[in-house]
Amino acid sequence: MAPDLPGLGIVERGAVAARDGRIVHAGPESALPAALLKGAEVIDCEGRWITPGLVDCHTHLVYAGDRAAEFEQRLAGATYEEIARAGGGIVSSVRAVREAGEDELVRQSLPRLDALLAEGVTTVEVKSGYGLALEPEVRCLRAARRLGQERAVTVQTTFLGAHALPAEANGDKDAYIAEVAEKMLPAIAALGLADAVDGFCEGIAFSPAQIERVFEAARRHGLPVKLHADQLSNLHGAALAARYHALSADHLEHTDEEGAQAMAAAGTVAVILPGAFYFIRETRKPPVELFRRHGVPMAVATDANPGTSPLTSPLLAMNMAATLFGMTVEECLKGVTREAARALGLQEETGTLEPGKRADLAVWDIERPAELVYRIGFNPLFARVWRGQ
Amino acid sequence: MAPDLPGLGIVERGAVAARDGRIVHAGPESALPAALLKGAEVIDCEGRWITPGLVDCHTHLVYAGDRAAEFEQRLAGATYEEIARAGGGIVSSVRAVREAGEDELVRQSLPRLDALLAEGVTTVEVKSGYGLALEPEVRCLRAARRLGQERAVTVQTTFLGAHALPAEANGDKDAYIAEVAEKMLPAIAALGLADAVDGFCEGIAFSPAQIERVFEAARRHGLPVKLHADQLSNLHGAALAARYHALSADHLEHTDEEGAQAMAAAGTVAVILPGAFYFIRETRKPPVELFRRHGVPMAVATDANPGTSPLTSPLLAMNMAATLFGMTVEECLKGVTREAARALGLQEETGTLEPGKRADLAVWDIERPAELVYRIGFNPLFARVWRGQ
Ligand SMILES: [Zn+2]
Ligand SMILES: [Zn+2]
Repeated sequence: MAPDLPGLGIVERGAVAARDGRIVHAGPESALPAALLKGAEVIDCEGRWITPGLVDCHTHLVYAGDRAAEFEQRLAGATYEEIARAGGGIVSSVRAVREAGEDELVRQSLPRLDALLAEGVTTVEVKSGYGLALEPEVRCLRAARRLGQERAVTVQTTFLGAHALPAEANGDKDAYIAEVAEKMLPAIAALGLADAVDGFCEGIAFSPAQIERVFEAARRHGLPVKLHADQLSNLHGAALAARYHALSADHLEHTDEEGAQAMAAAGTVAVILPGAFYFIRETRKPPVELFRRHGVPMAVATDANPGTSPLTSPLLAMNMAATLFGMTVEECLKGVTREAARALGLQEETGTLEPGKRADLAVWDIERPAELVYRIGFNPLFARVWRGQ
Repeated sequence: MAPDLPGLGIVERGAVAARDGRIVHAGPESALPAALLKGAEVIDCEGRWITPGLVDCHTHLVYAGDRAAEFEQRLAGATYEEIARAGGGIVSSVRAVREAGEDELVRQSLPRLDALLAEGVTTVEVKSGYGLALEPEVRCLRAARRLGQERAVTVQTTFLGAHALPAEANGDKDAYIAEVAEKMLPAIAALGLADAVDGFCEGIAFSPAQIERVFEAARRHGLPVKLHADQLSNLHGAALAARYHALSADHLEHTDEEGAQAMAAAGTVAVILPGAFYFIRETRKPPVELFRRHGVPMAVATDANPGTSPLTSPLLAMNMAATLFGMTVEECLKGVTREAARALGLQEETGTLEPGKRADLAVWDIERPAELVYRIGFNPLFARVWRGQ
């Protein structure tokens, strides 16, 4: 996946050597310096394929409860309104998260994390956004950090206070955004609990002007930004994200050419989230062809969340990106490795097999890389290596 | 799932007792006869859910090679024609199957079977149909039977000689069908290698009249029939299947009300296959509402095959049936248990938790059954029991 090699940069009869958790050689076995072999533990992968460990760069993995009952009601004919009146929707996730302690959040999130790890994930981003008040947002971010202690995985945390308006705000979005930007964000930055800041720019969430207030605050605190942009309508969220040199803009079903151009110029990654598109039966696809034409890097992620994408399989996210959006095998595979790392600002650390990077690897029982995208509901992972272990 | 109970027939604080591989009690723990406990091995499921073991009632699990390369080419812009000219399509699967020995077919199919078992499958149907000549069809059916010896699972085999026209038939469908009906089918029946006979009724495959010749032969040999019907167009395959009292008609995207009525009258199960719909980007959905209205039992299956549904997850098949076709949670769960058993003629043997049936069970780490349908790419199976073991 190294950027200076064509295509996937496939090396046959290759070898990866690591020391102190970092790659020191990745290339043909024949080019492996003899000195590296001295005293080394040698593992024969017996003809299997090694890829960079997968990076799931957009998840809402930490939450409590689930929304299976609501899903069931909706299939049985209940309207969204009826479900909302019965206390369903995001409100129910916020309620469950606020009631759960940090240990409980960790306990409920671990099986979801384990599902990702079982498919070769070595880096995962986790957003807050179901607390919607300082204390529960902090709790969620602490739980996210804890996940990285409980398992051999790199966790990047993102503060998503601007996810939805909590009931107690009584409809006053400006007041809540002021709270997010002036109180919650500074406190969370001071605690060092967030690696980035995110928002949801949409008619049903927050306006571009409100998102800008949050982004300005992030800038003051030296935190990079990301944005849920143009998912259900075109509020020019992609261009807004690019203006703030966002690491990524995510969803992007309604992004136009101007937005794509702005992202390309800013180096903002387009994070494609087919799980939500599939689950909520969207019909408008993200403009993959525009991103291609303008050279916008594309990542693919699960968007794992209880309401719109209860998906915990990056392999399936790739299959959906290919099947539903026509992304190529190469785009999908780079989308869950190199470009996903870039979407987290970790392009120097992981996402490719290059000397100097963390030895984050996935070893697969496959005949060719395309199988990772082609198969549906099948996991050929043989082994996972995180930082050399 | 017992038919005399409302809904899913949920029993809280339940107990299942088995003897010699058969269920002898399934109901409230409080109603468990004390005599059954004497000398019994007692397993506390600690509040988990027990369902009937899953039944995957439509698969093409036994094949060689895969079509990942073709998938990759198609995403990169190759047309179906270009792929066919390069030797792709079903022709490539037929070639690979004809070249593979029985052991090799078993070896390549086992990982796919293991993926099904990992999700609680205890009965699986396997079709031939990539041999398209007596000897390789026999080899595939033998390989399918072998799967049932290699793993703790019930395998039902289906002879699908009328799947596609082999190249050596030089376009003469009638002559090939005569071969299927008069030579292959009698030979396979004599060997006891098929539990049922299937065909593919479609413009690109065989006409209703040709399928009838196969069905007549099946009838002469006492074998029940099934049919790939009305997937891409309405050739009235559902009604044809019903006329022969088929166990099931499968796909059914284009089935009309007359077809649904005929199926209801004949007790023919509608097997819903959302994996193929998803993978080949169909837009016309099977008429679930019609089946509901006329009381046609609906099953859900993976259709696991290399060309149009490389899906090996019954959980995902349920999610797709709900998400893409609006099937309810109850319909999906019955669709992979009770109704799937009926689609194989095994309704007296498995598919519900009732005394007298095989003790085929799946034990799940869930809070409610809806989770099995709602989650995407997550497997909460705790344990699987096949015939009491
Ligand atoms: Zn999201
Ligand atoms: Zn089929």
